[in-house]
Amino acid sequence: MVRIAVVEGDGIGHEVIPVARSVLGAVRPDFEFFDVEVGYGRWERTGSACDSGTIADLRSADAILFGAVTTPPDPGYRSVVLQIRHDLDLYANIRPVRGEGFNIVIVRENTEGLYSGIEWRESDRACTLRVISEKGSRRIARCACTLARQRRHLTIGNKANVLKSDVLFVDICRQEAERAGVPYETRYIDALCLDILMHPDRYDVIVTTNIFGDILSDTAGYLAGGLGMLPSANIGDRYAFFEPVHGSAPDIAGQNIANPIAAIRSGVMLLRHFDDTGNAAAVEEAVGKTLAKGIRTPDLGGTTGTREFGEAVLREL
Amino acid sequence: MVRIAVVEGDGIGHEVIPVARSVLGAVRPDFEFFDVEVGYGRWERTGSACDSGTIADLRSADAILFGAVTTPPDPGYRSVVLQIRHDLDLYANIRPVRGEGFNIVIVRENTEGLYSGIEWRESDRACTLRVISEKGSRRIARCACTLARQRRHLTIGNKANVLKSDVLFVDICRQEAERAGVPYETRYIDALCLDILMHPDRYDVIVTTNIFGDILSDTAGYLAGGLGMLPSANIGDRYAFFEPVHGSAPDIAGQNIANPIAAIRSGVMLLRHFDDTGNAAAVEEAVGKTLAKGIRTPDLGGTTGTREFGEAVLREL
Ligand SMILES: CC(C)[C@H](C(=O)O)[C@@H](O)C(=O)O
Ligand SMILES: CC(C)[C@H](C(=O)O)[C@@H](O)C(=O)O
Repeated sequence: MVRIAVVEGDGIGHEVIPVARSVLGAVRPDFEFFDVEVGYGRWERTGSACDSGTIADLRSADAILFGAVTTPPDPGYRSVVLQIRHDLDLYANIRPVRGEGFNIVIVRENTEGLYSGIEWRESDRACTLRVISEKGSRRIARCACTLARQRRHLTIGNKANVLKSDVLFVDICRQEAERAGVPYETRYIDALCLDILMHPDRYDVIVTTNIFGDILSDTAGYLAGGLGMLPSANIGDRYAFFEPVHGSAPDIAGQNIANPIAAIRSGVMLLRHFDDTGNAAAVEEAVGKTLAKGIRTPDLGGTTGTREFGEAVLREL
Repeated sequence: MVRIAVVEGDGIGHEVIPVARSVLGAVRPDFEFFDVEVGYGRWERTGSACDSGTIADLRSADAILFGAVTTPPDPGYRSVVLQIRHDLDLYANIRPVRGEGFNIVIVRENTEGLYSGIEWRESDRACTLRVISEKGSRRIARCACTLARQRRHLTIGNKANVLKSDVLFVDICRQEAERAGVPYETRYIDALCLDILMHPDRYDVIVTTNIFGDILSDTAGYLAGGLGMLPSANIGDRYAFFEPVHGSAPDIAGQNIANPIAAIRSGVMLLRHFDDTGNAAAVEEAVGKTLAKGIRTPDLGGTTGTREFGEAVLREL
């Protein structure tokens, strides 16, 4: 038995996650799914978006399949995703972006940088501390180098021409790349966001700090036809959490028009996490065949609904 | 007499700035140009990239035309552009991006945020302080609202779902937009970097903090065919500084292949700064006609050299 915690979350999480879950269930009858409620909806109802009991439930699972949660910029509210990433120490956010002629994996540091949570007000200014630690940089660099060694090379995305904290980050990444014998280059994040669009074929594994990875992966989403396509894995030494890169998209929620591919592909990453490459490939192929038949959700120019897309994928399996 | 300080800087600055200068000289015989040397080249030769005498020279000018400087991530070296932006208090970095069906102006706060320069090492970590002040936010918000009032609407690019410092930034921008009667919306910077690519026609004036503006403008450069096309103005209450968005590009320097359009267009922004809309339009038209004839530098798929492109523009004038 493999126990999978399922968090639909808010908005379109309630639509895309059931699709991903049924696809996983179809290939893995041994998966036992259990629901965990977190998010803004729960917060509105109960006053708590996620408590220590929830975190314990998530810890008890062999893996977590997560939808999306709504994060209002309400000073009293702390993003659930950030809390979970922190509490489960999910330090590596892995975001593959693939398309015609390119195959990129963005490896985003997921626990520090501008997400330190160290913030304060003083007189007329508000401050946020960007923290780059040697330990935090080294573990994400190692993770990226392990990937890059199985693939081609490494790009270190940074802004060391302005940020001394990135001088440290780049130093550590260089050390790890050299130790692993991985060819590498460094690129400033602004130039990298443009160059990944102009020459996606030039990139393979990209490692970068937290908020730069956040921005870079959305930007690269353009290459894949939008956020509806992009899966991600948040991995630590003990826990593994899979979620689409997109958010809860309240503007399109409840209409059965959200693209479930990002969620299904997050399920594929979950399968690979259990070394189940056979089923991972089968699901990927089923998605590919469905798209090839012209079955698409509206964001891809089609007219198929979220549920119906899921049913089409199940038929291909 | 209008006195224009000319800083070629490093790399392709030595190639594109002479072109922009000769175009400006052709339409404005009253411009008196004088050279100011700053940058990495000067630093290597004299040990100083820019000193108080240089800053005084720049201050003495009616406007500054700037190329690009090389910024190595050398701990002992501070970027000259950053020093000048700081010393001249050039708080608004204005970056227009135009193309088929869209006309966007990115208004980037240019003096604080992650560029505060407040950085330190402690035990195993390196810290950079992101500072958002009420005063700094208000003056950039006003600048953006003034622009937006003459145009259509305002988008406030931020990451207030994670950064409390951006809660302040968004608050102030809202206040100013409401006061000015400018329609506005807020967008998270990651989603904005993707959406500007997917739907550039939906954007008009975008105001954002320093490093987000840095990344967003390079990303948007994709829409305009790359950085070779993008001009910028760095404006304060007393000084005005015009530079292409691109860097010194050491990899292509000295080959007469750099695209001088960004530099020429920075000159156009300089002309508009002096309310010389007639000549500004004339130069823009000359660039357009040159491109329409198929005369292009290699980055745009052509074979024309930097100097030759400049000569072609001069012939159109
Ligand atoms: C929702 C938000 C807190 C989150 C982030 O900033 O990491 C999201 O943008 C992401 O990329 O997962
Ligand atoms: C060279 C660098 C310091 C600069 C910046 O980060 O502002 C550049 O990227 C820019 O956009 O003008």
